[in-house]
Amino acid sequence: MFKMQELLEQLIEDARPAALLGKVADYIPELSKADPGAIGIHIIRSDGKQSWAGDNTVRFTIQSVVKPILLLQALLDNGIDYVKQHVGVEATGKPFDAINADQQLDAQHLNPMVNMGAIAMCALIKGNTYAEKFQRLLNLTRQLAGDPTIDIDEAVYLSEKATGNKNRALAYLLKTHGLLQDEVEDVLDCYFRACSISVTCENLAHIGYVLANRGMLPHTNERVFPGHFAQYVNAILMTCGMYNGSGEFAIRVGVPAKSGVGGGIMAVVPTRMGIGIFSPALDDKGNSIAGIRMLEQLSRHLYLSIF
Amino acid sequence: MFKMQELLEQLIEDARPAALLGKVADYIPELSKADPGAIGIHIIRSDGKQSWAGDNTVRFTIQSVVKPILLLQALLDNGIDYVKQHVGVEATGKPFDAINADQQLDAQHLNPMVNMGAIAMCALIKGNTYAEKFQRLLNLTRQLAGDPTIDIDEAVYLSEKATGNKNRALAYLLKTHGLLQDEVEDVLDCYFRACSISVTCENLAHIGYVLANRGMLPHTNERVFPGHFAQYVNAILMTCGMYNGSGEFAIRVGVPAKSGVGGGIMAVVPTRMGIGIFSPALDDKGNSIAGIRMLEQLSRHLYLSIF
Amino acid sequence: MFKMQELLEQLIEDARPAALLGKVADYIPELSKADPGAIGIHIIRSDGKQSWAGDNTVRFTIQSVVKPILLLQALLDNGIDYVKQHVGVEATGKPFDAINADQQLDAQHLNPMVNMGAIAMCALIKGNTYAEKFQRLLNLTRQLAGDPTIDIDEAVYLSEKATGNKNRALAYLLKTHGLLQDEVEDVLDCYFRACSISVTCENLAHIGYVLANRGMLPHTNERVFPGHFAQYVNAILMTCGMYNGSGEFAIRVGVPAKSGVGGGIMAVVPTRMGIGIFSPALDDKGNSIAGIRMLEQLSRHLYLSIF
Amino acid sequence: MFKMQELLEQLIEDARPAALLGKVADYIPELSKADPGAIGIHIIRSDGKQSWAGDNTVRFTIQSVVKPILLLQALLDNGIDYVKQHVGVEATGKPFDAINADQQLDAQHLNPMVNMGAIAMCALIKGNTYAEKFQRLLNLTRQLAGDPTIDIDEAVYLSEKATGNKNRALAYLLKTHGLLQDEVEDVLDCYFRACSISVTCENLAHIGYVLANRGMLPHTNERVFPGHFAQYVNAILMTCGMYNGSGEFAIRVGVPAKSGVGGGIMAVVPTRMGIGIFSPALDDKGNSIAGIRMLEQLSRHLYLSIF
Repeated sequence: MFKMQELLEQLIEDARPAALLGKVADYIPELSKADPGAIGIHIIRSDGKQSWAGDNTVRFTIQSVVKPILLLQALLDNGIDYVKQHVGVEATGKPFDAINADQQLDAQHLNPMVNMGAIAMCALIKGNTYAEKFQRLLNLTRQLAGDPTIDIDEAVYLSEKATGNKNRALAYLLKTHGLLQDEVEDVLDCYFRACSISVTCENLAHIGYVLANRGMLPHTNERVFPGHFAQYVNAILMTCGMYNGSGEFAIRVGVPAKSGVGGGIMAVVPTRMGIGIFSPALDDKGNSIAGIRMLEQLSRHLYLSIF
Repeated sequence: MFKMQELLEQLIEDARPAALLGKVADYIPELSKADPGAIGIHIIRSDGKQSWAGDNTVRFTIQSVVKPILLLQALLDNGIDYVKQHVGVEATGKPFDAINADQQLDAQHLNPMVNMGAIAMCALIKGNTYAEKFQRLLNLTRQLAGDPTIDIDEAVYLSEKATGNKNRALAYLLKTHGLLQDEVEDVLDCYFRACSISVTCENLAHIGYVLANRGMLPHTNERVFPGHFAQYVNAILMTCGMYNGSGEFAIRVGVPAKSGVGGGIMAVVPTRMGIGIFSPALDDKGNSIAGIRMLEQLSRHLYLSIF
Repeated sequence: MFKMQELLEQLIEDARPAALLGKVADYIPELSKADPGAIGIHIIRSDGKQSWAGDNTVRFTIQSVVKPILLLQALLDNGIDYVKQHVGVEATGKPFDAINADQQLDAQHLNPMVNMGAIAMCALIKGNTYAEKFQRLLNLTRQLAGDPTIDIDEAVYLSEKATGNKNRALAYLLKTHGLLQDEVEDVLDCYFRACSISVTCENLAHIGYVLANRGMLPHTNERVFPGHFAQYVNAILMTCGMYNGSGEFAIRVGVPAKSGVGGGIMAVVPTRMGIGIFSPALDDKGNSIAGIRMLEQLSRHLYLSIF
Repeated sequence: MFKMQELLEQLIEDARPAALLGKVADYIPELSKADPGAIGIHIIRSDGKQSWAGDNTVRFTIQSVVKPILLLQALLDNGIDYVKQHVGVEATGKPFDAINADQQLDAQHLNPMVNMGAIAMCALIKGNTYAEKFQRLLNLTRQLAGDPTIDIDEAVYLSEKATGNKNRALAYLLKTHGLLQDEVEDVLDCYFRACSISVTCENLAHIGYVLANRGMLPHTNERVFPGHFAQYVNAILMTCGMYNGSGEFAIRVGVPAKSGVGGGIMAVVPTRMGIGIFSPALDDKGNSIAGIRMLEQLSRHLYLSIF
């Protein structure tokens, strides 16, 4: 009989050597403290069954995996038309911190999965203050992750805030092109907090489950967002979720996914499962190297590619 | 009872006004002769049933819709690793005739769905001469389209050849960066012929069927290519098939597709159907404007989005 | 007998209609209040004789004409080697607020006549605080301009500071690439003050005189800086002083010059004269339209071109 | 008493070690055959006196030093307004074979000292055929160089023609943007021949003399072109003559000059002298490394900087 857990354990063992080829993110001091050998995976199937292996309860910061949640919150607060008008959806083919344009910059040059677009999305969240906006984003994250205890990693947040000058440059560019109205430091505080949310593989798998099941939570079948929001988010994850390794990932794995420099990957197998991965050693594009290896093998074994 | 044909006829009537907003391609004189009011659709479902409406038997040139066929021929002749090493797979976010780089250009900057990459793929086709390479490509096209009578439109071919200086510039750039060994005019002759292949909606639907069914021809279940080639091609179509409107198309329609400036769109609904569209009035990104409208409506009615 | 003043008055009358074709800068509200019809010229020849015509005593903000003074202060405080190592000297061919690079940015991509490089130069001025650095720059400006009453235009300074988000983006880019160590707002405060220094045509002519005479003040022959600093500054003015109209200006006028969006132009005719111009209606490159016209005519009449 | 020849011999000895740090051009096989240790200098002062040292009679190909001659021929045949309308004058800050633009390209993006602009200038030369155009260019070169025996180096010409695919790409880009009407291979044949003209230091010094003396030949005082053409050419040489080392050269040497990858430099000291240099070991910008060293020392000793 097929045992999912055995498969997952095998995947972890097979992927472990790959982690040695990667490098833990060091662009902020706090991230460089991660254990490069840590590796975990967690799966929640659409029938609600869960399987896991490795370091699936280790906490790490969500980083860019928060981008689809930011996008969902913006969609919930404004609807598709408004969001698409303010943050475009075309791939840029640029790395995660790319400045999309040097002279003329309009909303259609932005993308929710690239930093500049993600910063612009913070301003789209409803709330009287940025503290209130962030609290609403955190609440959505807890709901999607099925974990009301989720909170930010204060040390990473402070480290991001202290060193995030590239993001400051991006935010001021948005502002000078009329794409951001609020105070840069207010917006960035929300963005840095969002990136510093501390999660586990299980949390990411749960978020992936909800996106795979078009907005329904497991077990309760409570609906968090309308089904066409899932189509919107998953489509963008497919074209831009893995930085400038998205094309390769679409071929090798074939499902929507989002990675973060904290080492997390959240993958969405529409109608079938949500997957959470953690392994902080990154390839040169900023994606978890062992994480992609595990997803590739899993996709091959379970025929996950949607193509 | 649901009648597919009635739905298709309705879609055509609904999309007709959209065609008036577009513009027939005029970058080569021959293309500008197309009737901007022409509009057709053809569907082949995985059970082999066919439905159609409108001008589904009108002939038009395949143009960029030949790119996935070029890619398939390159894969068949060389395997995935070799092809990926010579023509990369990342989205560029650039329009269809974009020059991908101005100083350093390597194979990973190319993409099979962008002209420069497509020209490079011509050189990957096996054959002693470029006439022989093209003949093999034409044979594969006939097989995929289920139509042994397919041939090139001589007038369009000559027009492309006479005016294709942008493609000449691209080919010489490839050559100067060591990404093309053969004579530019030989390679381009093959490329111009490939773009000038004359097809119908039905042909495109048939090609889409084979990609949707991982290499199997309808009825006979004869296999034209291994299943993982379909995953490779479909993944690239999803991220880059609709020029720099690919992100928007992924959201609105949600299936792999390829458009051409001749007005054709071939769409692939994995495991479910192949779709061929013709309507030569284009939007500002070079995609058939009524064609996208029809596909969006069809996707909504039949829940085609793979996300 | 040749009368310089008559020539200058003639030049002003001839150039007046050209001003109507330009547009007063409006990127900060205060600048848009300038009188588009104002026009003045002042010349100081190497023998110390002065001539002028038009609105030569009207005050306007120095804007980018402060860049060569920033460069001189940086040279005085650090020497040529150190300055050149921190701010490069190659033309970028980009407009005055260009972001020079989007991914890799090093000191050699900067230029003292482009905003990003000018901001970097503020940090090179000696001083314990940025208030002290600015005071030293102001003192040098007063000395070069032969006018101890020169000060900043408080309203323009506040307006620059309130709206200068493009410069904030540039400064954070410098910081994130390791090209700026100090606090962005401190550095920018110095930069915004520098741009807001209020001057007259006569002041600019005096500065031009000192650069034309390799560092010597008129009358007293007191030396402000060594002669090879003048060669350094004048060479950069020639290649980059007139934004992306520098090539055209070199042909039509043929002397080192620097323009500012306040409508000023300072021109240096090596060994012969300094010229100050004011006319706030700008062409599409940000240069005073009547100012260039006057300089072209003056160059033709007096054979000023150094080529 | 000052002896120019002794100074030149001293300069050569001082610069010799610098040549060891450079590299002979190898982008075409023929160029790589040059002796990296060769070094020569020749000066013609405005009073007609000549001095030289080192390998001043060794022949080498003119390469990009032909660009100012191409520009002069275009000016002679069409006047300033027409030429400036077809080939712009702004610096690009790009290396010598840069493609100036990837999407929109107009005449103002070109520059006579960058390959794309130089190719466009070939088409501006009057003549019924490109053979005739080239013959007129060669005649002008002979006249400017004071040497009726000058001709092309056939081996270099054939090598350029066989391997010049970057220039083919540039020419097709010009054509596709409507900036070139004639057949690409015809135009390039003229361009490749122009680059292959074989010269000596003495020839270059003679050309520099004519530009320094606003169109007058030495001794005879025969006028080859009007004085304002010299201002046009010299101004462009100052801003763009030394590839993307032009800014540095303006500071260190301070005179208009043009270098070629054959190792030649022609320098113009307005009203004072023409200088010809040969030393084929190049720096990473494509300029003769010992040549620049010699010019810097010469400028310092003789106060040649025009700033």
